[in-house]
Amino acid sequence: MKIAIFQANPIIGDLQGNKEKIVKGYKKAREDGADLVVFPELFLPGYPPLDLVEKKEFRSAVLEYAYNIASITNSTGLIFGSITEDYQEVVGTGVYNSALLCYDGKIQFVQSKSLIPNYDVFDEVRYFEPAKKIQVHPFKKEILGISVCEDIWNDADYWKKRRYEIDPVQRQVDLGASLLINISASPYAYGKRKQKYDMLNLLTKNDRIPLVYVCCVGAQTDLIFDGASMCFDSNGRLCMIGKTYEEDYFIYDTSANYEEVTHIESSFEKEILDALIMGLRDYGKKTGFNKALVGLSGGIDSALVTYIAVQSFGKENVHVVLMPSQFSSRSSIDDSLKLIENLGISHNIISIQPVYEKILEMLNVLFEGKPHDVTEENIQARIRGIYLMAIANKFGYLLCSTGNKSELAVGYSTLYGDMCGAIEVIGDVYKTQVYKLAKFINRYEEIIPEKIITKAPSAELRPNQKDQDTLPPYEILDRILQLYLEEQNEISEINEEINDYDTVYKVLRMVDLNEFKRKQAPPVLRVSTKAFGYGRRYPIVQGWRK
Amino acid sequence: MKIAIFQANPIIGDLQGNKEKIVKGYKKAREDGADLVVFPELFLPGYPPLDLVEKKEFRSAVLEYAYNIASITNSTGLIFGSITEDYQEVVGTGVYNSALLCYDGKIQFVQSKSLIPNYDVFDEVRYFEPAKKIQVHPFKKEILGISVCEDIWNDADYWKKRRYEIDPVQRQVDLGASLLINISASPYAYGKRKQKYDMLNLLTKNDRIPLVYVCCVGAQTDLIFDGASMCFDSNGRLCMIGKTYEEDYFIYDTSANYEEVTHIESSFEKEILDALIMGLRDYGKKTGFNKALVGLSGGIDSALVTYIAVQSFGKENVHVVLMPSQFSSRSSIDDSLKLIENLGISHNIISIQPVYEKILEMLNVLFEGKPHDVTEENIQARIRGIYLMAIANKFGYLLCSTGNKSELAVGYSTLYGDMCGAIEVIGDVYKTQVYKLAKFINRYEEIIPEKIITKAPSAELRPNQKDQDTLPPYEILDRILQLYLEEQNEISEINEEINDYDTVYKVLRMVDLNEFKRKQAPPVLRVSTKAFGYGRRYPIVQGWRK
Repeated sequence: MKIAIFQANPIIGDLQGNKEKIVKGYKKAREDGADLVVFPELFLPGYPPLDLVEKKEFRSAVLEYAYNIASITNSTGLIFGSITEDYQEVVGTGVYNSALLCYDGKIQFVQSKSLIPNYDVFDEVRYFEPAKKIQVHPFKKEILGISVCEDIWNDADYWKKRRYEIDPVQRQVDLGASLLINISASPYAYGKRKQKYDMLNLLTKNDRIPLVYVCCVGAQTDLIFDGASMCFDSNGRLCMIGKTYEEDYFIYDTSANYEEVTHIESSFEKEILDALIMGLRDYGKKTGFNKALVGLSGGIDSALVTYIAVQSFGKENVHVVLMPSQFSSRSSIDDSLKLIENLGISHNIISIQPVYEKILEMLNVLFEGKPHDVTEENIQARIRGIYLMAIANKFGYLLCSTGNKSELAVGYSTLYGDMCGAIEVIGDVYKTQVYKLAKFINRYEEIIPEKIITKAPSAELRPNQKDQDTLPPYEILDRILQLYLEEQNEISEINEEINDYDTVYKVLRMVDLNEFKRKQAPPVLRVSTKAFGYGRRYPIVQGWRK
Repeated sequence: MKIAIFQANPIIGDLQGNKEKIVKGYKKAREDGADLVVFPELFLPGYPPLDLVEKKEFRSAVLEYAYNIASITNSTGLIFGSITEDYQEVVGTGVYNSALLCYDGKIQFVQSKSLIPNYDVFDEVRYFEPAKKIQVHPFKKEILGISVCEDIWNDADYWKKRRYEIDPVQRQVDLGASLLINISASPYAYGKRKQKYDMLNLLTKNDRIPLVYVCCVGAQTDLIFDGASMCFDSNGRLCMIGKTYEEDYFIYDTSANYEEVTHIESSFEKEILDALIMGLRDYGKKTGFNKALVGLSGGIDSALVTYIAVQSFGKENVHVVLMPSQFSSRSSIDDSLKLIENLGISHNIISIQPVYEKILEMLNVLFEGKPHDVTEENIQARIRGIYLMAIANKFGYLLCSTGNKSELAVGYSTLYGDMCGAIEVIGDVYKTQVYKLAKFINRYEEIIPEKIITKAPSAELRPNQKDQDTLPPYEILDRILQLYLEEQNEISEINEEINDYDTVYKVLRMVDLNEFKRKQAPPVLRVSTKAFGYGRRYPIVQGWRK
């Protein structure tokens, strides 16, 4: 059987646009001789549709589009993800996350998702009921076992600890499936593609049934979908893999012979950069921004974000602003100008000093005689926020925030200051990882000036300020954070490795106390298994760890 | 049986503090002759504990505290809400939201929650598995049917459309329960107390079994718990009701005669004001702030927020700042001064004009020759944000945001400007409701100057600006929003009432497009069935309704 895989990028809620992609793709694949054409999970409404699913008018519209799409099919099969609804159901939502198999002008078979994920960034129990039946469906010479994303993530052979009782794909195998198709929308995190490969390789090897695993691609605000759809033969060999971080279309012929694909995931640096570049570009594309603005401090974070913006929008569409104060070092400006030259982008230099002085003059009635403290530091950061937002507003730039994950974690940033922006581009990248990415960018030639990479990090908000005056060394800080956030360790477990209880405790407490800042942060492009934002729900007001 | 009801206010994660409340209350009630002492749902960890539940160390600590609490009991029973865990469970989280019944030094009986809510602000499926067993437990002369919150919200007689298949309380009735106890933590919205009464009245009347319904009180960031615990006799008569918006302790004697309580819920204005006052006060108390700062514009929103702040913290702990510009009317300042006098609070007047001019001067290199637009309006609002945050930072004030729900809905506010603050005090109150509250406050004497109430609303960011220049009249706007947000109507249904499709469409589109602003808004005190924030999850980037 020839199966056309459409690894496509939907826009959430844009039913007309998503439908057009399906119809156009279906016709193209039919011309190319495909027997069956497959689009990803919830492709028609876009994934994740969130509370749009709660709107009757939205659900009705999705179904109407789905029937309309089905009506144009002939004998070539078409599978795509959609919302379906059981109007007879009196208990629960009656709404399902379904794969629709269409041919001969009709929706011929519906297999809804059985395992409804509700952890990390997933909220699907809020909307969807589990499938009432798990079935297979004969199509041409095959018995199709069609499943939706999570349904294939509960294999008893692979998982030591399982989330769910049932294994829908095993059930389809038992029912005689000769070909497994899984439509998916699974957000990327580094390492996850290899994990998917291991899991699917084991499954197909054990069951001796080929599997077509169709993923979406693109960014949905903070969530990044990496593509890399996979086709396994009945020996568990990976025969084809989709492109990463871009749309792709290819045909897998179950009767053909393929060379085994062995390259699954690239280096951390390459994957993360590609993910962030696509994430920022897609955010701009889907919100109508084609040019970006960055506040360039002379530090490594804004340098990296500027590089990513240039890769996302092109150098002619990136503008940077240098906003020095009395505390800015000459080298910060020189290093920034070098970066600007290397990247070939436009810039302005606008001092914050006169405005800073004017604000202090106006507040003098209240502040006179009070010692300088973090207040004055915040004022500086917030003037920069005003400048950047004003330029973004006036010229229609997408303002990129430049905070990294280490800063966001411990609150080493100013709310309404450097936290201004539409999207936190590197908010899921630790400071030590920022250095790694910068070095990777410079692997062939110096793009980010070496001095930006080698100098001690500083917010330059008071004389001779250095990050490490108030924070542990970033190697220690980041390791503590990783053990705490991604690996969900207890404080005692973290300290087994770090062996400095006071520092560990202090860091964890800083993370907890700064939840209020993160509540008001821009969305963070997610590239790890636990990003700040939607997937981490921590109480803002709480008394754990006093 | 004499049942002591502790309608108490926990701090999330503060196990030591919450434990002390339980132990102290238990001892007091025992002295007062109680047979059974009851605390609300998840009182020990605090509700909602959110992702704290995912931490092993947190769960272990909760259990340790629970055992410790149980160890001090004698023959007097103690029920409180806690997290429990089944370490043998290999599928799912193995974690439960449980009611623990303790006496004679031990946890004697555990009834976990069967119905796990996962809609609106509830995310419990993320953490908790449903109870494996629904049981009753003999205690003294009664057979106790103990349930947790949502378990009592699925009565087939009351609900036309049910969320769940099973009815745990009915099951306990069938098992012979002679006394029903429900421990609860159910966020307040106007009208909900009456709904609870109707539901519980019907249930006790039908089943002819008395019910003790124990609620928590206080605010947990955005969520407001109103108290009003209820005791019904076996005829469905409401015998006792707890205080609203404050902690309460009382003993219900199932063998005594009570006069029926008929006052369930006060007027909209009184309830909402009480809720917001407690919400703001509790936010301050739990985060260590005992004084508040408000930016006073001369408009009704900031006047109302200032009044609420005075009620929450006392007039000696509220400071306001007037920040006029060239566009501010003289009356805005005069009206504000009158309010300040009426409330007896301190103030400063600090013009934004010199800073505004300095910023425009600095940006002139980019802005020269460009027409004024929303950019310049935003700059003004953001200077005010800088002033307020600086004063809050320097003196340790809690900065109260003053945006109302209508503004938040359509984005009629400036991100990093008037949206600055720790908490959106009236962010769940529509503009038309703001007027109602102001008139209610003035029912005996003029506290909010009449001119603030009667003048046409204006942001005063350009000459002669009025809200209604760009927005539909607030009566229309608010009705559309209410039909859309709280009542979840389709656009066609909304238009049946409004009969102006273009306006309805425009409003809904404004709501959708401004999701990015609300992502970065402070937490909103929730007093309606659908507030912006946690309970409403709308995609930021989407293409529905172009």
